[in-house]
Amino acid sequence: MPQSFHPPQRMLLGPGPSDVSPRVLEAMARPTIGHLDPQFVAMMDELKSMLQYALRTKNALTLPVSAPGSAGMETAFVNLVEPGDTVIVCQNGVFGGRMKENVERCGATPAMVEDEWGQPVDPQKLEDALKAHPEARTVAFVQAETSTGAESDTRTLVEIAHRHDCLAIVDAVTALGGTPIETDAWGIDAIYSGSQKCLSCTPGLSPVSFSEAAIARIRARTHKVQSWFLDLNLVMGYWGQGAKRAYHHTAPINALYGLHESLVMLQEEGLENAWARHRSNHIALRDGLEAMGLSFIVATDYRLPQLNAVRVPAGVDEAAVRAALLTDYSIEIGAGLGPLAGQIWRIGLMGYASNPRNVYVLLGALESILAAQGYKLTRGDALAAAQAAHAAQTDAPKAAVND
Amino acid sequence: MPQSFHPPQRMLLGPGPSDVSPRVLEAMARPTIGHLDPQFVAMMDELKSMLQYALRTKNALTLPVSAPGSAGMETAFVNLVEPGDTVIVCQNGVFGGRMKENVERCGATPAMVEDEWGQPVDPQKLEDALKAHPEARTVAFVQAETSTGAESDTRTLVEIAHRHDCLAIVDAVTALGGTPIETDAWGIDAIYSGSQKCLSCTPGLSPVSFSEAAIARIRARTHKVQSWFLDLNLVMGYWGQGAKRAYHHTAPINALYGLHESLVMLQEEGLENAWARHRSNHIALRDGLEAMGLSFIVATDYRLPQLNAVRVPAGVDEAAVRAALLTDYSIEIGAGLGPLAGQIWRIGLMGYASNPRNVYVLLGALESILAAQGYKLTRGDALAAAQAAHAAQTDAPKAAVND
Repeated sequence: MPQSFHPPQRMLLGPGPSDVSPRVLEAMARPTIGHLDPQFVAMMDELKSMLQYALRTKNALTLPVSAPGSAGMETAFVNLVEPGDTVIVCQNGVFGGRMKENVERCGATPAMVEDEWGQPVDPQKLEDALKAHPEARTVAFVQAETSTGAESDTRTLVEIAHRHDCLAIVDAVTALGGTPIETDAWGIDAIYSGSQKCLSCTPGLSPVSFSEAAIARIRARTHKVQSWFLDLNLVMGYWGQGAKRAYHHTAPINALYGLHESLVMLQEEGLENAWARHRSNHIALRDGLEAMGLSFIVATDYRLPQLNAVRVPAGVDEAAVRAALLTDYSIEIGAGLGPLAGQIWRIGLMGYASNPRNVYVLLGALESILAAQGYKLTRGDALAAAQAAHAAQTDAPKAAVND
Repeated sequence: MPQSFHPPQRMLLGPGPSDVSPRVLEAMARPTIGHLDPQFVAMMDELKSMLQYALRTKNALTLPVSAPGSAGMETAFVNLVEPGDTVIVCQNGVFGGRMKENVERCGATPAMVEDEWGQPVDPQKLEDALKAHPEARTVAFVQAETSTGAESDTRTLVEIAHRHDCLAIVDAVTALGGTPIETDAWGIDAIYSGSQKCLSCTPGLSPVSFSEAAIARIRARTHKVQSWFLDLNLVMGYWGQGAKRAYHHTAPINALYGLHESLVMLQEEGLENAWARHRSNHIALRDGLEAMGLSFIVATDYRLPQLNAVRVPAGVDEAAVRAALLTDYSIEIGAGLGPLAGQIWRIGLMGYASNPRNVYVLLGALESILAAQGYKLTRGDALAAAQAAHAAQTDAPKAAVND
């Protein structure tokens, strides 16, 4: 007969899920209450206003979808896209490809703007695509490509989309909490994220937010939203402000406790401090890795602090390195996907996991494993470089709240 | 600044979510690990085989969808229904209506078999509808209508569907774990449930299972499944047996720990014992309520043990009774929906919450509140009747594992 499952204690330094704060885990274990309980409804209002804080928005339609980030993506597409539409999809990694799939399944036509994996989306190519497709009503792109560690310039891309009378859908799954996002100031029309990256919560929820222009489009639809579960016309009835809630589906109560707690922690730390912390630990990691002779696939200007895509050196067995990290150190890092499979490691320093302790442990473990594989390096240089980087950033926060 | 949320300790005796075992809550607070971690993959295999146990099936395609029961319903429809199909939908409550919505959003035509709320689905009406719609390929109905507490005869309805060359989709959200379901023996083609009812887990996951005939239909589809997130062709790649897993979406790791633990508890208790326990506590509750002069809207033969729809007596303010239960006793029961709004209370004794303690507390609280409203009854009769009913069922299990 199966027994209770006791997972190992990992350090999650891959592309996500990332380490979850014990405060969040403890919150999830609190007693379940009903999804229409007045106390739960009050918690929902707090959760919504904390999501608005994290996303820098006043959008009334801001809520966590009751499913992982992929469902958040689908929420954006099935609500904003109608059959026959043309949607400009910018692809520079895995998740742009998934957007294309979403567009097609909505009965719409994707017009692709392709950039190399590891590059940001090229604004000029978007401009050209919009000129070539004056019928397009929507532009979609990923701010922080989890598959490559490259960041695109959301502000510029949204501005171009608007100039061509398009709404802009932005994937912020890996971005939110780790790198600046200004939903309102940049005019983003639809944004979705995930709970399990820089928010330090468990996977399973997808914060989303929609502008007034997006809501107007949803209300003006001529076809019903193809998903009942993700139809925002219905979801809004439950997540609307105040005490009057219409039952739609049973909310994932305890998961929402966890997200609430993670957002309380984000407010305690301060959003700008969280961004600065991700940056400072990234710089320490970068200096350590470069001291080992390793390099990044993304140019400095577009490099995400929370997701480091590192080139696997010639002669090194990348899978063996990941296996040794997991087996000998209980550290998880990620492999490359698609054209980058076998070429890179993806090292995440996301949310609660972005701290000096993890930087030093990872550098020490990676150095040992590479040395055992015969990769030539001087022991200790990486750690010294990371320490120096941390020391040089005198004003930058390094550890999260309660870390 | 928002503070951590500390929910009250409720007794959840409504239509769900129901009380969650402390073992499940504790499991959910264990450390998050990666969704491709070998130890997580091993847990997934166990989880799958325990779901097969709970659903009485050998179906290889048995897994928990990463979202609530409504998404489980949508998974069944978007994968099995194609545009232009006719689907016979049996409606005798809220959830048949939701099935109709799903069918329409798949671009198919629902042919409705209507029964009064509180009645089971009439097999003769299904037979007639199938004769009137020889083009139909699918039949869908709810085994345990959460909105009314009526149970339909799944075995007979599936047999009729098959005789007319249709696949049968069965909603088992409230049924699973509380009342017999024989997925294989009854030939069910697609079944979905929820984690938060008789499985004593938190809301947010939807166990589903599909027969070989259902898989054959999915593979033979001429249109892509309209939902990327719920496309079983893709989900199967992650939930397939063994170590080879293709990344689809990030699984809700900690929620799955909880479901795993709840299924371990179900195996420890034994599925038949769980059914018998739900039955024995239902009988005690029924005798207590009847001693108070209350009555059920569902006839004895079709009455679900886990969901008791009780008529609100004339002159009683039903909302005030629910409010007093919540405020004075921290007990949640449910209101009526649709045509039954204001007419009934829905009292759940589901999963971990189905025990003599809850029966006695609820009867005592309800009796006090009704007396305060001027409803005429003899104090203590209800408790005595429930005690007598429990005492008479000498062989029936009354409490769950670790209760």
